[in-house]
Amino acid sequence: MRTLLIVSHPDIIESYSQQYFLNSIKDVEEVTVRHLETIYPNGNINPTEEQRLLKEHDRIIFQFPFYWYSSPPLLKHWQDVVLEEGVTHGPSSTMLKGKEFGLVLMIGVSEREYQAGGSEHFTISELTKPFQALAHKTGMEYLPSLDIFQFAYMEDEQKMDMLIRYWQKLTMENGESLTVRERWLVNKLERSFLQIHESDDQNVIRHAIHILEENQMTIHDLKMVLDQIQHP
Amino acid sequence: MRTLLIVSHPDIIESYSQQYFLNSIKDVEEVTVRHLETIYPNGNINPTEEQRLLKEHDRIIFQFPFYWYSSPPLLKHWQDVVLEEGVTHGPSSTMLKGKEFGLVLMIGVSEREYQAGGSEHFTISELTKPFQALAHKTGMEYLPSLDIFQFAYMEDEQKMDMLIRYWQKLTMENGESLTVRERWLVNKLERSFLQIHESDDQNVIRHAIHILEENQMTIHDLKMVLDQIQHP
Repeated sequence: MRTLLIVSHPDIIESYSQQYFLNSIKDVEEVTVRHLETIYPNGNINPTEEQRLLKEHDRIIFQFPFYWYSSPPLLKHWQDVVLEEGVTHGPSSTMLKGKEFGLVLMIGVSEREYQAGGSEHFTISELTKPFQALAHKTGMEYLPSLDIFQFAYMEDEQKMDMLIRYWQKLTMENGESLTVRERWLVNKLERSFLQIHESDDQNVIRHAIHILEENQMTIHDLKMVLDQIQHP
Repeated sequence: MRTLLIVSHPDIIESYSQQYFLNSIKDVEEVTVRHLETIYPNGNINPTEEQRLLKEHDRIIFQFPFYWYSSPPLLKHWQDVVLEEGVTHGPSSTMLKGKEFGLVLMIGVSEREYQAGGSEHFTISELTKPFQALAHKTGMEYLPSLDIFQFAYMEDEQKMDMLIRYWQKLTMENGESLTVRERWLVNKLERSFLQIHESDDQNVIRHAIHILEENQMTIHDLKMVLDQIQHP
Protein backbone atom coordinates (compact mmCIF):
# COMPACT_ATOMS: atom_id res chain seq x y z
CA MET A 1 0.00 0.00 0.00
CA ARG A 2 1.31 3.43 -0.96
CA THR A 3 0.20 6.55 0.94
CA LEU A 4 0.15 10.12 -0.34
CA LEU A 5 0.48 12.51 2.60
CA ILE A 6 -0.59 16.02 1.60
CA VAL A 7 0.48 18.43 4.32
CA SER A 8 -0.71 22.03 4.44
CA HIS A 9 0.52 24.52 7.00
CA PRO A 10 1.23 28.20 6.34
CA ASP A 11 4.21 28.29 8.70
CA ILE A 12 5.43 24.72 9.08
CA ILE A 13 8.97 25.52 10.27
CA GLU A 14 7.52 27.13 13.39
CA SER A 15 5.17 24.24 14.11
CA TYR A 16 6.62 21.91 16.73
CA SER A 17 3.97 19.24 16.25
CA GLN A 18 4.23 19.19 12.46
CA GLN A 19 8.02 18.87 12.67
CA TYR A 20 7.75 16.10 15.26
CA PHE A 21 5.51 13.94 13.10
CA LEU A 22 7.12 14.68 9.74
CA ASN A 23 10.63 13.94 11.04
CA SER A 24 9.46 10.54 12.21
CA ILE A 25 8.43 9.39 8.74
CA LYS A 26 11.30 10.78 6.68
CA ASP A 27 12.61 7.30 5.84
CA VAL A 28 9.32 5.47 5.46
CA GLU A 29 9.46 4.55 1.80
CA GLU A 30 5.77 3.73 1.26
CA VAL A 31 4.74 7.28 2.25
CA THR A 32 5.12 10.19 -0.21
CA VAL A 33 5.11 13.48 1.73
CA ARG A 34 4.10 16.71 0.00
CA HIS A 35 4.08 20.00 1.90
CA LEU A 36 2.00 22.21 -0.38
CA GLU A 37 3.28 25.60 0.83
CA THR A 38 6.90 24.47 0.21
CA ILE A 39 6.20 22.99 -3.24
CA TYR A 40 3.99 25.86 -4.38
CA PRO A 41 5.23 29.04 -2.63
CA ASN A 42 3.30 31.19 -5.15
CA GLY A 43 0.17 29.09 -4.87
CA ASN A 44 0.25 27.96 -8.52
CA ILE A 45 -0.67 24.32 -8.07
CA ASN A 46 0.07 21.95 -10.96
CA PRO A 47 -3.14 19.90 -11.35
CA THR A 48 -1.66 17.34 -13.79
CA GLU A 49 1.24 16.51 -11.47
CA GLU A 50 -1.07 16.25 -8.45
CA GLN A 51 -3.51 14.03 -10.34
CA ARG A 52 -0.62 11.75 -11.42
CA LEU A 53 0.39 11.37 -7.76
CA LEU A 54 -3.18 10.64 -6.69
CA LYS A 55 -3.39 7.91 -9.28
CA GLU A 56 -0.18 6.25 -8.05
CA HIS A 57 -1.23 6.01 -4.40
CA ASP A 58 -3.79 3.89 -2.58
CA ARG A 59 -4.42 6.05 0.47
CA ILE A 60 -4.69 9.86 0.45
CA ILE A 61 -4.19 11.71 3.74
CA PHE A 62 -4.65 15.44 4.36
CA GLN A 63 -2.62 16.68 7.34
CA PHE A 64 -3.23 20.22 8.59
CA PRO A 65 -3.85 22.47 11.58
CA PHE A 66 -7.61 22.65 12.17
CA TYR A 67 -7.93 26.46 12.13
CA TRP A 68 -11.54 27.68 12.00
CA TYR A 69 -12.75 24.11 11.60
CA SER A 70 -11.31 23.66 8.11
CA SER A 71 -8.16 23.36 6.00
CA PRO A 72 -5.61 26.12 5.29
CA PRO A 73 -6.32 28.21 2.14
CA LEU A 74 -3.77 26.42 -0.06
CA LEU A 75 -5.26 22.99 0.63
CA LYS A 76 -8.69 24.35 -0.28
CA HIS A 77 -7.17 25.73 -3.49
CA TRP A 78 -5.67 22.27 -4.13
CA GLN A 79 -9.15 20.73 -3.86
CA ASP A 80 -10.64 23.35 -6.20
CA VAL A 81 -8.06 22.86 -8.98
CA VAL A 82 -6.97 19.20 -8.64
CA LEU A 83 -10.29 17.44 -8.07
CA GLU A 84 -11.80 17.76 -11.51
CA GLU A 85 -14.97 16.05 -12.67
CA GLY A 86 -14.21 13.77 -15.57
CA VAL A 87 -10.57 13.36 -14.46
CA THR A 88 -10.45 12.40 -10.79
CA HIS A 89 -14.11 11.39 -10.37
CA GLY A 90 -17.53 11.44 -11.95
CA PRO A 91 -19.48 8.99 -14.07
CA SER A 92 -16.81 8.85 -16.75
CA SER A 93 -13.80 8.59 -14.44
CA THR A 94 -12.87 6.18 -11.67
CA MET A 95 -9.38 7.41 -10.81
CA LEU A 96 -10.06 7.85 -7.10
CA LYS A 97 -12.75 5.20 -6.70
CA GLY A 98 -11.92 2.59 -4.07
CA LYS A 99 -8.94 4.49 -2.65
CA GLU A 100 -8.90 5.44 1.04
CA PHE A 101 -9.07 9.01 2.28
CA GLY A 102 -8.35 10.36 5.73
CA LEU A 103 -7.44 13.38 7.84
CA VAL A 104 -4.69 14.00 10.37
CA LEU A 105 -5.74 17.07 12.35
CA MET A 106 -3.62 19.15 14.70
CA ILE A 107 -6.04 20.79 17.10
CA GLY A 108 -5.21 23.55 19.58
CA VAL A 109 -8.21 23.14 21.85
CA SER A 110 -8.81 20.16 24.14
CA GLU A 111 -10.98 17.22 23.07
CA ARG A 112 -13.72 17.79 25.67
CA GLU A 113 -14.60 21.19 24.12
CA TYR A 114 -15.71 19.46 20.90
CA GLN A 115 -19.22 18.57 22.01
CA ALA A 116 -22.55 20.27 22.57
CA GLY A 117 -22.04 22.58 25.53
CA GLY A 118 -18.28 22.81 24.95
CA SER A 119 -16.58 25.94 23.62
CA GLU A 120 -16.44 24.49 20.08
CA HIS A 121 -20.04 23.20 20.28
CA PHE A 122 -19.71 20.46 17.61
CA THR A 123 -17.82 17.17 17.39
CA ILE A 124 -14.94 16.63 14.97
CA SER A 125 -17.18 14.19 13.05
CA GLU A 126 -19.73 16.97 12.58
CA LEU A 127 -17.18 19.61 11.60
CA THR A 128 -15.44 17.40 9.02
CA LYS A 129 -18.61 16.70 7.00
CA PRO A 130 -17.22 18.65 4.01
CA PHE A 131 -14.30 16.19 3.82
CA GLN A 132 -16.60 13.21 4.26
CA ALA A 133 -18.70 14.60 1.40
CA LEU A 134 -15.54 14.97 -0.72
CA ALA A 135 -14.68 11.30 -0.13
CA HIS A 136 -18.25 10.27 -0.97
CA LYS A 137 -18.34 12.35 -4.14
CA THR A 138 -15.02 10.98 -5.44
CA GLY A 139 -15.80 7.37 -4.45
CA MET A 140 -13.14 7.11 -1.74
CA GLU A 141 -13.59 5.32 1.56
CA TYR A 142 -13.43 7.78 4.49
CA LEU A 143 -11.14 6.59 7.29
CA PRO A 144 -11.61 7.62 10.93
CA SER A 145 -9.63 10.84 11.32
CA LEU A 146 -6.59 11.02 13.59
CA ASP A 147 -7.35 13.97 15.88
CA ILE A 148 -4.28 15.22 17.74
CA PHE A 149 -5.45 17.54 20.50
CA GLN A 150 -2.98 19.93 22.17
CA PHE A 151 0.08 17.90 21.23
CA ALA A 152 2.55 20.35 22.77
CA TYR A 153 1.04 19.77 26.23
CA MET A 154 1.37 15.97 26.13
CA GLU A 155 3.73 13.92 28.29
CA ASP A 156 6.58 12.18 26.42
CA GLU A 157 4.88 8.80 26.69
CA GLN A 158 1.61 10.15 25.27
CA LYS A 159 3.58 11.67 22.41
CA MET A 160 5.16 8.28 21.62
CA ASP A 161 1.73 6.63 21.68
CA MET A 162 0.44 9.27 19.30
CA LEU A 163 3.40 8.68 17.01
CA ILE A 164 2.54 4.96 16.77
CA ARG A 165 -1.08 5.85 15.94
CA TYR A 166 0.23 8.29 13.31
CA TRP A 167 2.43 5.62 11.68
CA GLN A 168 -0.53 3.26 11.71
CA LYS A 169 -2.80 5.86 10.10
CA LEU A 170 -0.26 6.24 7.32
CA THR A 171 0.84 2.65 6.75
CA MET A 172 -1.43 0.12 8.49
CA GLU A 173 -4.34 -1.46 6.68
CA ASN A 174 -7.62 -0.03 7.92
CA GLY A 175 -9.16 -1.81 10.94
CA GLU A 176 -8.57 -1.83 14.64
CA SER A 177 -8.60 -5.62 15.14
CA LEU A 178 -5.82 -7.22 17.17
CA THR A 179 -4.76 -9.31 14.18
CA VAL A 180 -4.36 -6.25 11.94
CA ARG A 181 -2.37 -4.38 14.57
CA GLU A 182 -0.10 -7.35 15.33
CA ARG A 183 0.57 -8.07 11.67
CA TRP A 184 1.50 -4.42 11.17
CA LEU A 185 3.85 -4.53 14.18
CA VAL A 186 5.58 -7.74 13.03
CA ASN A 187 6.11 -6.16 9.64
CA LYS A 188 7.62 -3.01 11.18
CA LEU A 189 9.87 -5.03 13.48
CA GLU A 190 11.14 -7.19 10.63
CA ARG A 191 12.17 -4.08 8.76
CA SER A 192 13.98 -2.66 11.78
CA PHE A 193 15.72 -6.02 12.10
CA LEU A 194 17.13 -5.69 8.59
CA GLN A 195 18.32 -2.15 9.23
CA ILE A 196 20.22 -2.55 12.49
CA HIS A 197 23.56 -4.21 12.97
CA GLU A 198 24.07 -4.49 16.72
CA SER A 199 23.46 -8.15 17.57
CA ASP A 200 21.90 -7.34 20.98
CA ASP A 201 19.24 -5.18 19.35
CA GLN A 202 18.72 -7.84 16.70
CA ASN A 203 18.13 -10.43 19.40
CA VAL A 204 15.56 -8.29 21.17
CA ILE A 205 13.65 -7.69 17.96
CA ARG A 206 13.87 -11.36 16.89
CA HIS A 207 12.47 -12.31 20.30
CA ALA A 208 9.62 -9.79 19.99
CA ILE A 209 8.68 -11.08 16.55
CA HIS A 210 8.74 -14.63 17.86
CA ILE A 211 6.42 -13.81 20.77
CA LEU A 212 4.00 -11.90 18.57
CA GLU A 213 3.79 -14.71 16.04
CA GLU A 214 3.32 -17.26 18.80
CA ASN A 215 0.51 -15.14 20.26
CA GLN A 216 -1.22 -15.03 16.92
CA MET A 217 -1.04 -18.82 16.62
CA THR A 218 -2.39 -19.25 20.15
CA ILE A 219 -5.29 -16.89 19.43
CA HIS A 220 -5.99 -18.76 16.21
CA ASP A 221 -6.04 -22.11 18.04
CA LEU A 222 -8.29 -20.77 20.80
CA LYS A 223 -10.73 -19.44 18.22
CA MET A 224 -10.92 -22.86 16.57
CA VAL A 225 -11.63 -24.58 19.90
CA LEU A 226 -14.30 -21.98 20.70
CA ASP A 227 -15.83 -22.52 17.32
CA GLN A 228 -16.06 -26.29 17.89
CA ILE A 229 -17.71 -25.82 21.27
CA GLN A 230 -20.31 -23.50 19.76
CA HIS A 231 -20.95 -25.66 16.64
CA PRO A 232 -20.06 -29.26 17.62
CA MET B 1 -29.21 47.93 10.64
CA ARG B 2 -25.97 47.92 8.65
CA THR B 3 -24.86 44.82 6.75
CA LEU B 4 -21.31 43.87 5.74
CA LEU B 5 -21.41 41.64 2.68
CA ILE B 6 -18.11 39.81 2.22
CA VAL B 7 -18.04 38.25 -1.23
CA SER B 8 -15.39 35.74 -2.27
CA HIS B 9 -15.17 34.35 -5.80
CA PRO B 10 -11.94 33.62 -7.68
CA ASP B 11 -13.39 34.69 -11.06
CA ILE B 12 -16.33 36.97 -10.32
CA ILE B 13 -16.48 38.72 -13.69
CA GLU B 14 -17.30 35.40 -15.34
CA SER B 15 -19.99 34.51 -12.81
CA TYR B 16 -23.46 35.31 -14.12
CA SER B 17 -25.19 34.69 -10.80
CA GLN B 18 -22.75 36.78 -8.75
CA GLN B 19 -23.10 39.70 -11.20
CA TYR B 20 -26.89 39.41 -11.15
CA PHE B 21 -27.12 39.69 -7.38
CA LEU B 22 -24.38 42.24 -6.85
CA ASN B 23 -25.76 44.59 -9.52
CA SER B 24 -29.11 44.58 -7.76
CA ILE B 25 -27.72 45.98 -4.52
CA LYS B 26 -25.30 48.59 -5.87
CA ASP B 27 -27.38 51.48 -4.55
CA VAL B 28 -28.57 49.95 -1.28
CA GLU B 29 -26.89 52.24 1.20
CA GLU B 30 -27.17 50.07 4.31
CA VAL B 31 -25.12 47.27 2.66
CA THR B 32 -21.32 47.53 2.40
CA VAL B 33 -20.08 45.17 -0.33
CA ARG B 34 -16.50 43.85 -0.26
CA HIS B 35 -15.26 41.48 -2.94
CA LEU B 36 -12.09 40.09 -1.37
CA GLU B 37 -10.31 39.00 -4.57
CA THR B 38 -10.71 42.54 -6.02
CA ILE B 39 -9.61 44.33 -2.86
CA TYR B 40 -6.70 41.99 -2.15
CA PRO B 41 -5.41 40.70 -5.53
CA ASN B 42 -2.17 39.56 -3.87
CA GLY B 43 -3.97 37.94 -0.94
CA ASN B 44 -2.43 40.28 1.65
CA ILE B 45 -5.48 40.92 3.79
CA ASN B 46 -5.39 43.92 6.12
CA PRO B 47 -6.72 42.58 9.45
CA THR B 48 -7.05 45.98 11.14
CA GLU B 49 -9.17 47.40 8.32
CA GLU B 50 -11.35 44.28 8.21
CA GLN B 51 -11.82 44.33 11.99
CA ARG B 52 -12.82 48.00 11.84
CA LEU B 53 -15.51 47.15 9.25
CA LEU B 54 -16.78 44.22 11.32
CA LYS B 55 -17.16 46.51 14.30
CA GLU B 56 -19.20 49.05 12.31
CA HIS B 57 -21.78 46.58 11.01
CA ASP B 58 -24.59 44.65 12.68
CA ARG B 59 -24.96 41.75 10.26
CA ILE B 60 -22.05 39.92 8.59
CA ILE B 61 -22.80 37.88 5.44
CA PHE B 62 -20.36 35.63 3.56
CA GLN B 63 -21.36 35.18 -0.09
CA PHE B 64 -19.50 32.58 -2.16
CA PRO B 65 -19.75 29.65 -4.58
CA PHE B 66 -20.01 26.45 -2.55
CA TYR B 67 -17.10 24.58 -4.20
CA TRP B 68 -16.12 21.41 -2.35
CA TYR B 69 -18.58 22.22 0.41
CA SER B 70 -16.63 25.21 1.71
CA SER B 71 -15.46 28.77 1.02
CA PRO B 72 -12.89 29.86 -1.60
CA PRO B 73 -9.26 29.98 -0.36
CA LEU B 74 -9.14 33.75 0.13
CA LEU B 75 -12.21 33.76 2.39
CA LYS B 76 -10.60 31.01 4.50
CA HIS B 77 -7.47 33.15 4.69
CA TRP B 78 -9.66 36.08 5.77
CA GLN B 79 -11.02 33.97 8.63
CA ASP B 80 -7.52 32.88 9.67
CA VAL B 81 -6.07 36.40 9.84
CA VAL B 82 -9.04 38.64 10.72
CA LEU B 83 -10.77 36.60 13.42
CA GLU B 84 -8.31 36.99 16.24
CA GLU B 85 -8.86 35.90 19.79
CA GLY B 86 -8.69 38.88 22.11
CA VAL B 87 -9.69 41.28 19.31
CA THR B 88 -12.82 39.99 17.58
CA HIS B 89 -13.88 37.44 20.20
CA GLY B 90 -12.85 35.60 23.34
CA PRO B 91 -13.32 36.20 27.03
CA SER B 92 -11.65 39.60 26.88
CA SER B 93 -13.36 40.85 23.74
CA THR B 94 -16.98 41.24 22.71
CA MET B 95 -16.56 42.94 19.34
CA LEU B 96 -18.68 40.41 17.42
CA LYS B 97 -20.95 39.34 20.26
CA GLY B 98 -24.65 39.78 19.47
CA LYS B 99 -24.13 40.52 15.78
CA GLU B 100 -25.80 38.35 13.16
CA PHE B 101 -23.90 36.07 10.80
CA GLY B 102 -25.13 34.33 7.68
CA LEU B 103 -24.21 32.70 4.39
CA VAL B 104 -25.39 33.28 0.82
CA LEU B 105 -24.36 30.18 -1.13
CA MET B 106 -24.30 29.74 -4.91
CA ILE B 107 -24.64 26.03 -5.52
CA GLY B 108 -24.16 24.26 -8.85
CA VAL B 109 -25.97 21.04 -7.99
CA SER B 110 -29.72 20.73 -7.47
CA GLU B 111 -31.28 20.87 -4.00
CA ARG B 112 -32.55 17.28 -3.99
CA GLU B 113 -28.96 15.93 -4.17
CA TYR B 114 -28.19 17.41 -0.74
CA GLN B 115 -29.62 14.59 1.34
CA ALA B 116 -28.72 11.05 2.34
CA GLY B 117 -28.89 9.00 -0.82
CA GLY B 118 -28.32 12.04 -3.06
CA SER B 119 -25.07 12.62 -4.93
CA GLU B 120 -23.86 15.09 -2.26
CA HIS B 121 -24.98 12.84 0.61
CA PHE B 122 -25.31 15.56 3.27
CA THR B 123 -27.65 18.51 3.79
CA ILE B 124 -26.46 22.12 3.57
CA SER B 125 -27.08 22.40 7.32
CA GLU B 126 -24.67 19.51 7.90
CA LEU B 127 -22.02 20.80 5.50
CA THR B 128 -22.00 24.33 6.95
CA LYS B 129 -21.24 23.22 10.52
CA PRO B 130 -17.79 24.91 10.39
CA PHE B 131 -19.51 28.27 9.79
CA GLN B 132 -22.07 27.59 12.50
CA ALA B 133 -19.16 26.81 14.84
CA LEU B 134 -17.48 30.08 13.82
CA ALA B 135 -20.66 32.01 14.72
CA HIS B 136 -20.89 30.17 18.04
CA LYS B 137 -17.24 30.77 18.90
CA THR B 138 -17.42 34.49 18.16
CA GLY B 139 -20.80 34.99 19.87
CA MET B 140 -22.75 35.78 16.72
CA GLU B 141 -26.27 34.57 15.98
CA TYR B 142 -26.31 32.21 12.98
CA LEU B 143 -29.03 33.09 10.46
CA PRO B 144 -30.64 30.49 8.15
CA SER B 145 -28.43 30.42 5.05
CA LEU B 146 -29.76 31.53 1.67
CA ASP B 147 -29.03 28.56 -0.61
CA ILE B 148 -29.27 29.44 -4.29
CA PHE B 149 -29.31 26.19 -6.26
CA GLN B 150 -28.58 26.22 -10.02
CA PHE B 151 -29.46 29.88 -10.47
CA ALA B 152 -28.62 29.95 -14.19
CA TYR B 153 -31.32 27.36 -14.92
CA MET B 154 -34.13 29.28 -13.19
CA GLU B 155 -37.08 30.89 -14.98
CA ASP B 156 -37.17 34.71 -14.90
CA GLU B 157 -39.92 34.73 -12.29
CA GLN B 158 -37.98 32.38 -10.01
CA LYS B 159 -34.95 34.63 -10.38
CA MET B 160 -37.00 37.66 -9.30
CA ASP B 161 -38.31 35.73 -6.28
CA MET B 162 -34.77 34.81 -5.37
CA LEU B 163 -33.69 38.42 -5.68
CA ILE B 164 -36.36 39.48 -3.15
CA ARG B 165 -35.17 36.78 -0.75
CA TYR B 166 -31.60 38.02 -1.28
CA TRP B 167 -32.53 41.62 -0.45
CA GLN B 168 -34.37 40.36 2.61
CA LYS B 169 -31.35 38.32 3.72
CA LEU B 170 -29.24 41.48 3.49
CA THR B 171 -31.59 44.10 4.88
CA MET B 172 -34.65 42.61 6.59
CA GLU B 173 -34.70 41.99 10.30
CA ASN B 174 -34.44 38.26 11.04
CA GLY B 175 -37.75 36.40 11.20
CA GLU B 176 -40.18 34.99 8.66
CA SER B 177 -43.39 36.34 10.24
CA LEU B 178 -45.89 38.11 8.02
CA THR B 179 -45.56 41.28 10.08
CA VAL B 180 -41.77 41.40 9.62
CA ARG B 181 -42.03 40.79 5.89
CA GLU B 182 -44.78 43.40 5.42
CA ARG B 183 -42.97 46.05 7.46
CA TRP B 184 -39.85 45.44 5.34
CA LEU B 185 -41.86 45.79 2.11
CA VAL B 186 -43.58 49.01 3.22
CA ASN B 187 -40.19 50.44 4.05
CA LYS B 188 -38.75 49.49 0.64
CA LEU B 189 -41.78 50.89 -1.17
CA GLU B 190 -41.60 54.18 0.71
CA ARG B 191 -37.99 54.60 -0.39
CA SER B 192 -38.87 53.84 -4.01
CA PHE B 193 -41.64 56.43 -3.71
CA LEU B 194 -39.11 59.10 -2.74
CA GLN B 195 -36.80 58.19 -5.61
CA ILE B 196 -39.21 58.17 -8.55
CA HIS B 197 -40.77 61.19 -10.20
CA GLU B 198 -43.40 59.81 -12.57
CA SER B 199 -46.75 60.47 -10.90
CA ASP B 200 -48.33 57.26 -12.29
CA ASP B 201 -45.65 55.11 -10.64
CA GLN B 202 -46.00 57.17 -7.46
CA ASN B 203 -49.70 56.48 -7.43
CA VAL B 204 -49.19 52.74 -7.81
CA ILE B 205 -46.70 52.64 -4.97
CA ARG B 206 -48.81 54.87 -2.71
CA HIS B 207 -51.73 52.53 -3.32
CA ALA B 208 -49.61 49.44 -2.50
CA ILE B 209 -48.40 51.01 0.74
CA HIS B 210 -51.97 51.90 1.68
CA ILE B 211 -53.22 48.34 1.06
CA LEU B 212 -50.36 46.80 3.03
CA GLU B 213 -50.89 49.09 6.00
CA GLU B 214 -54.62 48.43 5.92
CA ASN B 215 -53.94 44.68 5.87
CA GLN B 216 -51.72 44.99 8.92
CA MET B 217 -54.44 46.87 10.81
CA THR B 218 -57.03 44.27 9.82
CA ILE B 219 -54.77 41.45 10.99
CA HIS B 220 -54.17 43.32 14.23
CA ASP B 221 -57.92 43.77 14.79
CA LEU B 222 -58.66 40.13 13.99
CA LYS B 223 -56.01 39.01 16.47
CA MET B 224 -57.59 41.14 19.21
CA VAL B 225 -61.04 39.66 18.53
CA LEU B 226 -59.57 36.14 18.54
CA ASP B 227 -57.82 36.90 21.82
CA GLN B 228 -61.08 38.04 23.43
CA ILE B 229 -62.88 34.89 22.29
CA GLN B 230 -60.17 32.69 23.79
CA HIS B 231 -59.79 34.68 27.03
CA PRO B 232 -63.17 36.41 27.58
